[in-house]
Amino acid sequence: MLLNPYGMVYVLRLGHRLGRDKRVTTHVGLVARAFGANGFILEGCDESVLGSLRKVLSVWGGDMVVECCSSGMEVVRSWKDAGGEVIHLTMYGLPLDDVIDAIRVSPKPKLVIVGARRVEWFYYENSDYNVAVGNQPHSEVSALALFLDRLFRGRWAYIRFGGAKLRVIPSSRGKVVVRVGGPREGSDEGSRGFHKGSG
Amino acid sequence: MLLNPYGMVYVLRLGHRLGRDKRVTTHVGLVARAFGANGFILEGCDESVLGSLRKVLSVWGGDMVVECCSSGMEVVRSWKDAGGEVIHLTMYGLPLDDVIDAIRVSPKPKLVIVGARRVEWFYYENSDYNVAVGNQPHSEVSALALFLDRLFRGRWAYIRFGGAKLRVIPSSRGKVVVRVGGPREGSDEGSRGFHKGSG
Repeated sequence: MLLNPYGMVYVLRLGHRLGRDKRVTTHVGLVARAFGANGFILEGCDESVLGSLRKVLSVWGGDMVVECCSSGMEVVRSWKDAGGEVIHLTMYGLPLDDVIDAIRVSPKPKLVIVGARRVEWFYYENSDYNVAVGNQPHSEVSALALFLDRLFRGRWAYIRFGGAKLRVIPSSRGKVVVRVGGPREGSDEGSRGFHKGSG
Repeated sequence: MLLNPYGMVYVLRLGHRLGRDKRVTTHVGLVARAFGANGFILEGCDESVLGSLRKVLSVWGGDMVVECCSSGMEVVRSWKDAGGEVIHLTMYGLPLDDVIDAIRVSPKPKLVIVGARRVEWFYYENSDYNVAVGNQPHSEVSALALFLDRLFRGRWAYIRFGGAKLRVIPSSRGKVVVRVGGPREGSDEGSRGFHKGSG
């Protein structure tokens, strides 16, 4: 993947509540993939979320690892024991612009933590960086997107997702989707279809 | 507000389904506020979402207008009749980087549309721009955040939200919240509290 020179980046989603958080957590996982993370770990093995993400990977490609765990704290401890660094996104942390260069230049594998509601004190104490994407309440979905955007300097826009079955051809006023590897791939004469929008 | 020189920006959230989309739609509204939009219009008057947003405005400040409507199409027609322009965020659209400069230099009031599931063809046809924040599926929450970030060139980070009751003091390893206008405002000796994280 194009973003590899910056080192491995995993996202850990904490505090997912079955049912209630399904959609937001799925969006967090989709952002991880679309903005170039190498892996997504969900605390709590919600198969409806994991299945949605795997389905997107199968259709739209990419090789992001999708896993779940029973304890985010154990993931953090193992990550640090293995020489990685931990970045916790929180509205109480230091401004993104102030710390992103230091984070970017470090060659250590990065674990980026996004919480749901209340995040245990452990994560504040054991993260190498507590980073705020603005000190205002918004969303873990947008916080992760902005963090990865700055980390990768916008290069997520140029990722080519390997193994995709479908690909969008950008269009000023339509929905043009081509089947990859088919006889007409890469042409806007390819198989057009009306596909659900993502907003 | 600091971002005013760029002109008025409203966000229109389409296709909200009561209950099911409550959390994601609330996150869209919070992103609109945190990233500098002047107004948020929800198609479908879900008081649980509108109430959550108004509560955030009352506590954390800002003057974003929060409204609802019964028909997004009517909002679009009125917006255009009044001389404004309409930008629809969709994964099928033109790359953000290719169109954002043209959008930014236009002094017209901007209506930014974010959909939920399927978006009616009307919006593709009647938008001045169909814009993709990447042609991959992710989230309307992240799409809106990235769009506003690029539109405002990252200046959302410097917005001072007027009328705030609480303000976060950025912290490397804690949660420091001060009560605005109290005797200790602006000092990290201010009223410290443990407040819910936003992830």
